[in-house]
Amino acid sequence: MTLFYPNGQPYRGTEKQTQQASQSPVVYGHRGMTLEEDLNASNRYYLETDRGVIYKKPTPVQIVHVDYPKRSAAKITEAYFRKASTTDYNGIYRGKYIDFEAKETTHSNYIPLKNFHSHQVEHMKRIKRHGGIGFIIVRFTQSDDIFLLDADYLADCWSAAQKGRRKSIPKSLFQEKGFMIPQKYLPRIDYLRVVDDVYFKTGHI
Amino acid sequence: MTLFYPNGQPYRGTEKQTQQASQSPVVYGHRGMTLEEDLNASNRYYLETDRGVIYKKPTPVQIVHVDYPKRSAAKITEAYFRKASTTDYNGIYRGKYIDFEAKETTHSNYIPLKNFHSHQVEHMKRIKRHGGIGFIIVRFTQSDDIFLLDADYLADCWSAAQKGRRKSIPKSLFQEKGFMIPQKYLPRIDYLRVVDDVYFKTGHI
Repeated sequence: MTLFYPNGQPYRGTEKQTQQASQSPVVYGHRGMTLEEDLNASNRYYLETDRGVIYKKPTPVQIVHVDYPKRSAAKITEAYFRKASTTDYNGIYRGKYIDFEAKETTHSNYIPLKNFHSHQVEHMKRIKRHGGIGFIIVRFTQSDDIFLLDADYLADCWSAAQKGRRKSIPKSLFQEKGFMIPQKYLPRIDYLRVVDDVYFKTGHI
Repeated sequence: MTLFYPNGQPYRGTEKQTQQASQSPVVYGHRGMTLEEDLNASNRYYLETDRGVIYKKPTPVQIVHVDYPKRSAAKITEAYFRKASTTDYNGIYRGKYIDFEAKETTHSNYIPLKNFHSHQVEHMKRIKRHGGIGFIIVRFTQSDDIFLLDADYLADCWSAAQKGRRKSIPKSLFQEKGFMIPQKYLPRIDYLRVVDDVYFKTGHI
């Protein structure tokens, strides 16, 4: 299975892992059926139940060469991963534009800011300035806790790090200012229920 | 230059054209600097002037094999174009979710409906039902006229075609029910000015 970080960069394991990695055609943003897969399944559920229209954007790829075999589909034979200029997920919910980035961390008490890019932080600032809803979803894999945190806090941590302060977001900030997302069968990660509470009930919008 | 239709399918020209097509690494959705390029430039201008946050989504690609050369970037060596499940462009403008598909036609008096996919039509219906703005932008290349037409008219034409009626949208419908988009230097295609008139001044929203 070929493994990629959510930013499109490949996971470079040991030689052995890399060899294993080239056998399966399926590409996940995370290892196995994890956050991205769960969110995609949740978004399909939201679509099927007509609750919201939210999609993950395709991984940006710079295509260099394409072959056109006779009687079969065009085959891309040379391409490279590009850095995303925006977040991975966007769509519409209850009439509002919604935009978020989702990340996993294996650290028990924090997520390093290097999981995000400056243009993603800038993008979410713009979205909020234009009246949209912007947040991050972070899964702490050790405890399997998933939180939603408004993009403002990411922006705060980001600018603090620029000034030499800590280069990560502590889990305590998620616990204090974020909201835990319930995990269940359908949808697996019911983040829109949290969006209801955070953005629609508090007069936030 | 490798040429692609906006749906990601390659342009299959004559043998000679295909050979020429494999020399340049740049991929456009249309032939040359056309509608897609002009819209991307316009969107960059909107972003820089903080007028709206609208992006083209990356072309969806199914990645099958990736090489990891030492000391250089991961190289995708086998991948295929997938059909987009949504429209190409979305974002936020004046607090509203905005979503559209853009196409060119060389026909002088109509655009064939086969330029669109059923899931794109369904997607735009959903967007409108959830309170978003949805439309198509069509350039008639012979006259170089560019129109914005609300997604409702596309849906109407689509369902009429399903019932055996005409399989295209006549230019006259764009002239009667759509709005011509002015072309200028900056931005090249000022479609948000038309969105202002159509969706924000008429009490449509």
